[in-house]
Amino acid sequence: MPDADRRTDRLACEEPMAVELNDVRVATTMRTPGNDFELAVGFCFTEGLLGDAEIAQVKYCAAGSAVASDFNVVTVTTAGDAPEPRPRLTTTTSSCGFCGTSEIDELLAELDRVAGDPLPWESLAAAPARMRASQQLFDDTGAVHAAGLVDRDGSVSLVREDVGRHNAVDKLIGRMLLDGRLPAAGLGLVVSGRASFELVHKAWTGGFRALAAVSAPTALAATTAEAAGMQLAGFARNGAMTVYL
Amino acid sequence: MPDADRRTDRLACEEPMAVELNDVRVATTMRTPGNDFELAVGFCFTEGLLGDAEIAQVKYCAAGSAVASDFNVVTVTTAGDAPEPRPRLTTTTSSCGFCGTSEIDELLAELDRVAGDPLPWESLAAAPARMRASQQLFDDTGAVHAAGLVDRDGSVSLVREDVGRHNAVDKLIGRMLLDGRLPAAGLGLVVSGRASFELVHKAWTGGFRALAAVSAPTALAATTAEAAGMQLAGFARNGAMTVYL
Repeated sequence: MPDADRRTDRLACEEPMAVELNDVRVATTMRTPGNDFELAVGFCFTEGLLGDAEIAQVKYCAAGSAVASDFNVVTVTTAGDAPEPRPRLTTTTSSCGFCGTSEIDELLAELDRVAGDPLPWESLAAAPARMRASQQLFDDTGAVHAAGLVDRDGSVSLVREDVGRHNAVDKLIGRMLLDGRLPAAGLGLVVSGRASFELVHKAWTGGFRALAAVSAPTALAATTAEAAGMQLAGFARNGAMTVYL
Repeated sequence: MPDADRRTDRLACEEPMAVELNDVRVATTMRTPGNDFELAVGFCFTEGLLGDAEIAQVKYCAAGSAVASDFNVVTVTTAGDAPEPRPRLTTTTSSCGFCGTSEIDELLAELDRVAGDPLPWESLAAAPARMRASQQLFDDTGAVHAAGLVDRDGSVSLVREDVGRHNAVDKLIGRMLLDGRLPAAGLGLVVSGRASFELVHKAWTGGFRALAAVSAPTALAATTAEAAGMQLAGFARNGAMTVYL
């Protein structure tokens, strides 16, 4: 293609953000700037880092600074003590094997099964197209994922976008937590990509009754959704979908 | 959809795998089982955990066991000392702001610019369709990403698939490291999804001359590729693509 056109194109923005919980750095993620407080709160919540502690304050590390990169560190402070964060990097223990089944057992011990009436499958099938209308960043760049809140009637009332699909979900759940709307009993979560174990885990933590993914779920995602009592639909496109549970 | 068909469907397998480097657990990832040694080695390499140390041994934690989940922990042992792994979870330092630019500066300090003759753009444009023929798991499940090695003539000689796109790249690079084929001077990497900063980082660490993505790159990915001297193409579909660098 020696004569390929040169033209301007819009690229999705991606910058690192660190999350600090009670002065301990718990995560560094590449994210699309915007809705940073929601992302920080949502991450701490869906990763189980908050325990029963309430959010007391969320702020940028360098509030008052005029330097843009000072806004890439968000600190979350809880009113009560949060559990000691579990380090991601640990010395080997004598326990050797682990598998998806044991991860599900751990979640079952920590989380209640999701509550509320099942959503009509028609509502879940309709959700992606309705969310699509709000995916402004995707229209501009083609490079960002989205997560949306699905009501019983299939309307999508809240949408968050991010270059990372986990981040889009964390932003949505963080917003709902800050608004006192969790657990999301009887409500659905729609995601633009695939449904992995981790997304089902986050949806379960948020108490969502259903998860609809535009692309395929994995086997472990389906098993986990079953354990949670969560409806799971995949390939939700053009008003049709595959129902797994 | 009260009369939705019930039929069997194949779901992609996803199980946790832990990577241990010289007896320290450095990662836990959800991955598609298979090519686990490549994934463990590739991860340690692309994350810069090996330093100048050579791989002495790669094995399952519980070699000889008949329990499948005992094969979800892979231990990598180096001949010389690897650098002390940097924990992902650290206490806050006084340094507050950070941004994508500083991450690129760090990479420039650690890595040489990529070497070799540029690949013909035609070869990069042809690569996704050629890789597509080898994406067996994707055909079965629709839920896995792929990474492929692109030669100068556009042929794709090695393909790895995984439910995680970073894992697919780590498996490919791990295979090449174990075969003594790194740095990949004058060679290209093709990925089935988007080109994020982290994928460019991994490609740079492997010394790839070019990166072609089926979907969009982010702005930081493009800036990082420029710093690396790496060709970057996005939306490589149907023989056409967008050239960013």
